[in-house]
Amino acid sequence: MGEITMGGFVARDKEFESRVRASFARQSLMTTIGARLTKILPGEIEIEFPFRSSLCQQNGYLHAGIATAVVDTACGYAALSLTAAGMEVLTVEYKANFVSPAAGDLFIARAKVKKAGRTLTVCSGDVAAVHGGDETLIATMLATMMALPVE
Amino acid sequence: MGEITMGGFVARDKEFESRVRASFARQSLMTTIGARLTKILPGEIEIEFPFRSSLCQQNGYLHAGIATAVVDTACGYAALSLTAAGMEVLTVEYKANFVSPAAGDLFIARAKVKKAGRTLTVCSGDVAAVHGGDETLIATMLATMMALPVE
Amino acid sequence: MGEITMGGFVARDKEFESRVRASFARQSLMTTIGARLTKILPGEIEIEFPFRSSLCQQNGYLHAGIATAVVDTACGYAALSLTAAGMEVLTVEYKANFVSPAAGDLFIARAKVKKAGRTLTVCSGDVAAVHGGDETLIATMLATMMALPVE
Amino acid sequence: MGEITMGGFVARDKEFESRVRASFARQSLMTTIGARLTKILPGEIEIEFPFRSSLCQQNGYLHAGIATAVVDTACGYAALSLTAAGMEVLTVEYKANFVSPAAGDLFIARAKVKKAGRTLTVCSGDVAAVHGGDETLIATMLATMMALPVE
Repeated sequence: MGEITMGGFVARDKEFESRVRASFARQSLMTTIGARLTKILPGEIEIEFPFRSSLCQQNGYLHAGIATAVVDTACGYAALSLTAAGMEVLTVEYKANFVSPAAGDLFIARAKVKKAGRTLTVCSGDVAAVHGGDETLIATMLATMMALPVE
Repeated sequence: MGEITMGGFVARDKEFESRVRASFARQSLMTTIGARLTKILPGEIEIEFPFRSSLCQQNGYLHAGIATAVVDTACGYAALSLTAAGMEVLTVEYKANFVSPAAGDLFIARAKVKKAGRTLTVCSGDVAAVHGGDETLIATMLATMMALPVE
Repeated sequence: MGEITMGGFVARDKEFESRVRASFARQSLMTTIGARLTKILPGEIEIEFPFRSSLCQQNGYLHAGIATAVVDTACGYAALSLTAAGMEVLTVEYKANFVSPAAGDLFIARAKVKKAGRTLTVCSGDVAAVHGGDETLIATMLATMMALPVE
Repeated sequence: MGEITMGGFVARDKEFESRVRASFARQSLMTTIGARLTKILPGEIEIEFPFRSSLCQQNGYLHAGIATAVVDTACGYAALSLTAAGMEVLTVEYKANFVSPAAGDLFIARAKVKKAGRTLTVCSGDVAAVHGGDETLIATMLATMMALPVE
C-alpha cells in the first residue's frame, strides 16, 4: 500500500526518485560526461552516456575510469533508492573488470542492489557499449556502498 | 650495464620513459583532468592532478571515478615501464577503496608494480589529497594489467 | 549439432563434463570440505557443501575463506567448461563480499561465466546457505580466470 | 604513556594481544590449517602455516582459498588490534591476486592496517611461500573490515 516494490526491494521513502534526481544533478562529473538517468526503480538504476573524445585513453576508446565513474554512480543511487529519507550514500569500495574495448557512440550503465543491509549495501553493475542496435558488455562492477545521515 | 633498475625492477627497454610519456600524452582524459606525470621510474609512476569543480560528486568532492582513472593510468604505466618495446598495456581489472573524502587542491596518484609476469602484471597504487603541505590518503587500488603487442 | 549450448555459451570440447569432474576430484581441499559437483553445464557450475565444525571462524560460522574457496573452484570450472581440450584454468584474482553470517547446514556455490575471452574469462558466483528449505545469500564473487595449456 | 604504537598506529586497548589470541584460538579453520600467530603488533599481524596435502587444488599446490583464508584472518586481527575493548571485527569484503603457484613447505601471511576508520578499516596483506630460506610472493589482498560491538 503506497509501497513501491521491485525485484524483492521496497522503497522505504516514497520520494526516492526525487532524492536520486536531486543528488545526481549535483554531480558535476555526470554533467561533464553528458550522463543522464534513464531508469530509477527501487534498487535499480540505469544511466546512459555518450562517447566523448575528451574522456579517452591512449587508443581513443573511452577511459576505463569514466565507465567506472558512471557505473559507480549508478550503484550508489541503486543503494540510495532503498534508504530512508535523510540518508545519503558513499562509495566504500568497488572492483571492476574490463572485458572489451569501450568502443561505441553510446554507453549504458545498469546497477542493481544485490543485498541491502542496515549500514552497507552491495550492488552489482554492468556497462554496455551500444553499436547500431547491439550491446556489448565492456565492464562489470561489484561495489560496497555505505549509508549515512545527511549532515 | 645500461640497465635502469629500481626496487628490484629492471626496465628491459631503455626508452621506457619516452614510451610512457608518448602514451600518456594520447590519453585525452588526462588532459581533461589536468594530470601530469611527475615521476617515471622502472615499475613506479607518480601523477599529480588539481581539483576541478567540473569533476565532482554530489557533495563537491572529487568524484571517486576520477581518482580511480588517474591511479589506474599510473598503474598501467608502472606496468608499461617494465615491458619490452613494442608492447602496450591494458587494464584487466582493479579494485579500489575510498577511505577519506577527496577534498583538496591537489592530488597525487602513486603506483608501483607488485609482481611483473609474462602476460599479467599486478600493481598497487594510492591517491593522496594535499592540503597545505600535508597529505591525506583518499584511495588505494590493487590492479591487474595485461601486456599485449601494439597492433 | 553436437554442440552443447546454454546461456549463449557453447562448449568447444564435448568432453567438458568429464574434464571438470576429473580436475575437481584432484582438489584435495574439496574432499576435505565435503564438496560435490551438483551441476555442470557450459559456463555454469554448482557445488554443494555441508557445514563442518572444523572449518569455522571465531563465532562458529563457516570461515569466509571456505565459502571463497568453493565459489572460486566453481568459477574456475565454469571457465574450464568453455575451453578447448588440453587447457587448464588458473585463478588470476577474485573479489568477494560477505553479506550474511555463514550459518546453515548446507551451502550452495553457483558460478557463471560472464565473459569468456581468449586468455581471460570473467566469472561471477554466489554462495547461499540453506536453512530448512530457504536460501540466504552469504557471499558474492567476481573473478578472473586464465586459460593455459596443460603442461 | 602506556600506549603501544607502531607505524603510526596506537592500540586503544592495552589487552589487544590477548583479545587477538583468544579470538584466533576459536577459529577452528586455523587449527585445521595448522596456522599460528607469529607477530601481533598494533595494526600488524603475521601468521605462519605449513603445506598440507589435504588443502590443495588440482595440481597439488595449496588452494588459493586457503591462502585467502589465512591472510583474511591476518587482516581481521590487524583491524581488531586497533579497536576498543568489547569490539569484534567481521570481513566486509576482500580482493586477492594470485601471482605465483602456492608451492612451498611453509607460508607466511602478513597483514597491515592501511586506514583505520570508526566503522570500517582497510587492510592490505601478502602471502609468501618459503623455500629453503627464500620467500616468493604468492598472493596479495586488499580487504575491508567492519568493527561491531561483541554481542
